[in-house]
Amino acid sequence: MSQVDTQLEELKSEIEAEIPSTISITDVKYEGPELVVYTRDPKEFAGDGNLVRQLASKLRKRITVRPDPEVLSRPREAREKVRDVIPEEAGVADLDFHEDTGEVVIEAEKPGMVIGRHGSTLREITREVGWTPEVVRTPPIESSTVSNVRNFLKQERQERREILERVGRQIHREEMQDEQWVRITTLGCCREVGRAAFIVNTAETRILVDCGDKPGAEGEVPYLQIPEALGAGAQNLDAVVLTHAHLDHSALIPLLFKYGYDGPIYCTEPTRDLMGLLTLDYLDVASKEGRTPPYESAQVREAIKHCIPLEYGDVTDIAPDVKLTFHNAGHILGSAVSHFHIGDGLYNVAFSGDIHYEDTRLFNGAVNDFPRVEALVMESTYGGRNDYQTDQEDSEEALIEAINNVHDKGGKVLIPAFAVGRSQEIMLVIEEAMRSGKIPEMPVHLDGMIWEATAIHTTYPEYLRDELQDRIFHEDENPFLADQFNHIDGGEEERQEVVDEGPSIILSTSGMVTGGPIMSWLRHLGSDPDSTLTFVGYQAQGTLGRRIQNGWDEIPVSDFGSGRDGRGSKLTLEMDVETVDGFSGHADREGLMNFVRNMSPRPEKVLCVHGDESSVQDFSSALYHEFNMRTFAPKNLETFRFK
Amino acid sequence: MSQVDTQLEELKSEIEAEIPSTISITDVKYEGPELVVYTRDPKEFAGDGNLVRQLASKLRKRITVRPDPEVLSRPREAREKVRDVIPEEAGVADLDFHEDTGEVVIEAEKPGMVIGRHGSTLREITREVGWTPEVVRTPPIESSTVSNVRNFLKQERQERREILERVGRQIHREEMQDEQWVRITTLGCCREVGRAAFIVNTAETRILVDCGDKPGAEGEVPYLQIPEALGAGAQNLDAVVLTHAHLDHSALIPLLFKYGYDGPIYCTEPTRDLMGLLTLDYLDVASKEGRTPPYESAQVREAIKHCIPLEYGDVTDIAPDVKLTFHNAGHILGSAVSHFHIGDGLYNVAFSGDIHYEDTRLFNGAVNDFPRVEALVMESTYGGRNDYQTDQEDSEEALIEAINNVHDKGGKVLIPAFAVGRSQEIMLVIEEAMRSGKIPEMPVHLDGMIWEATAIHTTYPEYLRDELQDRIFHEDENPFLADQFNHIDGGEEERQEVVDEGPSIILSTSGMVTGGPIMSWLRHLGSDPDSTLTFVGYQAQGTLGRRIQNGWDEIPVSDFGSGRDGRGSKLTLEMDVETVDGFSGHADREGLMNFVRNMSPRPEKVLCVHGDESSVQDFSSALYHEFNMRTFAPKNLETFRFK
Repeated sequence: MSQVDTQLEELKSEIEAEIPSTISITDVKYEGPELVVYTRDPKEFAGDGNLVRQLASKLRKRITVRPDPEVLSRPREAREKVRDVIPEEAGVADLDFHEDTGEVVIEAEKPGMVIGRHGSTLREITREVGWTPEVVRTPPIESSTVSNVRNFLKQERQERREILERVGRQIHREEMQDEQWVRITTLGCCREVGRAAFIVNTAETRILVDCGDKPGAEGEVPYLQIPEALGAGAQNLDAVVLTHAHLDHSALIPLLFKYGYDGPIYCTEPTRDLMGLLTLDYLDVASKEGRTPPYESAQVREAIKHCIPLEYGDVTDIAPDVKLTFHNAGHILGSAVSHFHIGDGLYNVAFSGDIHYEDTRLFNGAVNDFPRVEALVMESTYGGRNDYQTDQEDSEEALIEAINNVHDKGGKVLIPAFAVGRSQEIMLVIEEAMRSGKIPEMPVHLDGMIWEATAIHTTYPEYLRDELQDRIFHEDENPFLADQFNHIDGGEEERQEVVDEGPSIILSTSGMVTGGPIMSWLRHLGSDPDSTLTFVGYQAQGTLGRRIQNGWDEIPVSDFGSGRDGRGSKLTLEMDVETVDGFSGHADREGLMNFVRNMSPRPEKVLCVHGDESSVQDFSSALYHEFNMRTFAPKNLETFRFK
Repeated sequence: MSQVDTQLEELKSEIEAEIPSTISITDVKYEGPELVVYTRDPKEFAGDGNLVRQLASKLRKRITVRPDPEVLSRPREAREKVRDVIPEEAGVADLDFHEDTGEVVIEAEKPGMVIGRHGSTLREITREVGWTPEVVRTPPIESSTVSNVRNFLKQERQERREILERVGRQIHREEMQDEQWVRITTLGCCREVGRAAFIVNTAETRILVDCGDKPGAEGEVPYLQIPEALGAGAQNLDAVVLTHAHLDHSALIPLLFKYGYDGPIYCTEPTRDLMGLLTLDYLDVASKEGRTPPYESAQVREAIKHCIPLEYGDVTDIAPDVKLTFHNAGHILGSAVSHFHIGDGLYNVAFSGDIHYEDTRLFNGAVNDFPRVEALVMESTYGGRNDYQTDQEDSEEALIEAINNVHDKGGKVLIPAFAVGRSQEIMLVIEEAMRSGKIPEMPVHLDGMIWEATAIHTTYPEYLRDELQDRIFHEDENPFLADQFNHIDGGEEERQEVVDEGPSIILSTSGMVTGGPIMSWLRHLGSDPDSTLTFVGYQAQGTLGRRIQNGWDEIPVSDFGSGRDGRGSKLTLEMDVETVDGFSGHADREGLMNFVRNMSPRPEKVLCVHGDESSVQDFSSALYHEFNMRTFAPKNLETFRFK
């Protein structure tokens, strides 16, 4: 009998000793970080609302109770009863019974009503039918990503259970090492922005945090080929942790599966879906640009299959000596500050990931409150001494003024925007401005992946800012569903119609004018002096967006990709060009300083990463002088030992 | 045709263009770092003393010329002629003709006379017979180590050539990496003394510097099992560099061959022989103490077979992007400061290894003068703020006084000493004191490995201090051959005779009274109040030597190993116990500071290693404050990126 089996036997006895003798336990298994308890008496188990909570706290494990397959009621009968228990207004769209695990997946428009206060409705379902309910939201805007991911996971259910069981046994293996130490190796995004990747390494465990590419420098990838990264191979990783879905953090996660990785990816549920969306687009863009991408869509599916979604605040065992907790990072949907508790009180490291410290319209500000933390790995994108951003309020006013000006002229406002994050922020600003009459009502067209990304946002409203959640849940007023938002899904024909209409606002990808439908919009509107090209996000060196910002007004047509307008011909830009600052998803210098100033507890050491060389150096030095902490501006490929 | 073959073809053409057309080149090969040029006209080649030097400087390679096997004269005839060319006084002991390579190995008592001024006699030999001469010294004291190593290498000659050819092609391979960076990973001896091991790592190359054990803590070995050490396996190392033969630097070198390493070990010739002696003794001691050593004598032989000896000052390609140069370190015979020149002017790192900065009787002080050096990895054994040692002169006077006192009482001076290094230093002090009449003539008995280690010293007088070389070479006065030195090779019987005689001095291993013949001497002399136990070296915590120094006078007999004197019985120490400081092979605090103060050029960064935690911290902080350089006191398992 293996050590894990012995452990499970012991857990079974402990559970039996804790629960009433009327409830029988037939099996106890690990599935990923969870302990799954099978019982012949699921209804009795569900009878006491506190029982599972007590067990979890006693055993210090996350616990799921499932009915032993032998005692399951028949789905046909159960279906009726489940529908009876759930209030009509919940809008149940689908019930999916899985006889292998005794779970019933309930898809509903309002999952909260399926759950009930403190889970009371869920327990009632089990008391009625014995099945274990699991609830997912019907996206208010149809999202092909969400439905593809859900269908795929359903189809791969059997293999996924096997993966989870294997991972679970791996997490709960006996520690093999006598020694205790904690190290971090930098594999990317040091003194640069892009290709985020770190190894957190103990004597026992090896965890990869993020695995991105470097936008605009496709050849520069994290140092995965050196032994420090994957050791003797990708199989040597215990876990991958993904802080958020942006490609500079996620692009090469699927590649790990090509390298033979077969373990878990811990991320939030929206990060999983957005990673699917963005990595598939990454493959698409690469192939359109004639590059051979480093992996195929099969590996994206593998990555999704291996995701273990965690919610903010869940303390989760991910290795015998490591507990991971995600906290809201305020940067994009599902973005997470990742806190690692290592050993039994040995050491604590937090990775900020990308953060926004102040509340934005979309998200609450980043969490910086932890039970313990000795070291912080901190983004420094705007860490330079002059990297102060315009106030949110001023930025919004500037945008509103710009829109009004263009509207008065009868032109159009063309906004290049990143699909994930900034687009939704701008949508909220516009929606409110129209609702409150600060700008006239007019259509807002969303082109490129923006619509799909927005649909994913509406699937996970729990991840949005409190006030926004309130509006959505309690006032039933979801701003993303406002009438003026129009999804451009009719291609060039629809774009031409928009051009021929009156004033409107157009949000289109790509955000740095490096390709995508924005190129087509420029062709349509570039020579219209009544329209304005309005930048709301960072334009990197070398992008067409930056060149236009810098005053270029002759754009070679080859930049439009297709080249069908003829070689050597140019478009002369006659539309206005404006920049409205302050909509970044990143904290500015002050926000970064405040994140550390108000951090509780204040860490002893900070590694400043994810910023240009001068930004990280400035920021590292500022933290040192202000707070007298040990700060570092590491290079890639260094290893720091913390304990 | 491989890239290396193309390179060799080109080199052949270049050589042909440089030399007179009368000289034909039949083949050009790499053997380790050397370029071997085969010619049908070896005699003509040897005619011009400058030809090889010019070629070496033009091609920037170390060059060896050998006769094409087809033109070799017959050994029988050649033997006669070679003997005619070499002066009688050279004391030729053996001529060994190797038809596979056209080399004749000449063993002589006075190799200098075989070489002649600037190699003139060697060239004359070639002019006469065509063979390429190679000279080795007949040890003035017979050394079983030296003769075993030489015989073994002779026997393995064929395999060794294959190894050298493989290594040579590896060194001269085309660089595969575009990137350039330089890193050092600490695998041992950080904030501790023992288990020295570092990885020097470029994008192209991975070099292990030292691989020792930790004396008194046999379980604590360098971190060879983490990917940073050997990567995907020992085969991933390009080279191993050994700074000197002490076990805390060399003990686990043979283990690498058990792990599948098959590449070169760069060290000086005496380091190779001493490593053989000490690692075999290490196996012996382990087995006597009932421990299973991590490797067997077969791996020691593998290690010796893979040694590529370098002389001080030789600039040697050891990888496509790394040149290694050894310099005298003044610590023990053959000890080397190791200087790495990386890339084409990219970066320079020096490892001090263990050093003595001032001249000692045995060795010149450590070299600290380099063409360039940006980073220094520096020993800090006596780097603590109070680690000042007694002056050499005062120490010698103290020792002389101690000896005189004991002699006056008619007793014996028993000195526990390390076989390699300190014993020879003490021998020189005693020999001079007797010669100059400061102490009376009396026998000096050498027990344990001391005699053998001394024999190895006499084999390599070029590695000794200039003044000592002068005495040996020009005044024909080798102090190690003095009459009073007696090798105890008659075991207990001879020891009893020594005990029964009049006053004498006894040097015996082990140096910290942890086993070996010193235990037997203690049994004989421990109860003699007229004799003195005189410590001349560092006694580590936990050793019997330290306990005696601290005043213990009841020594449990079990400490004597055999236990045959009966369980529980004790020896009461009645002999005097004295300590004479100042004979360390390590620089003291002042010496370490001076090494850096006078270093040319002064490095930008210093990693302080190889010392107790407080010593490295003190020393690192002192260097920072005194010289305003960036200093570090790394932990084990950190990686520093320098470029």
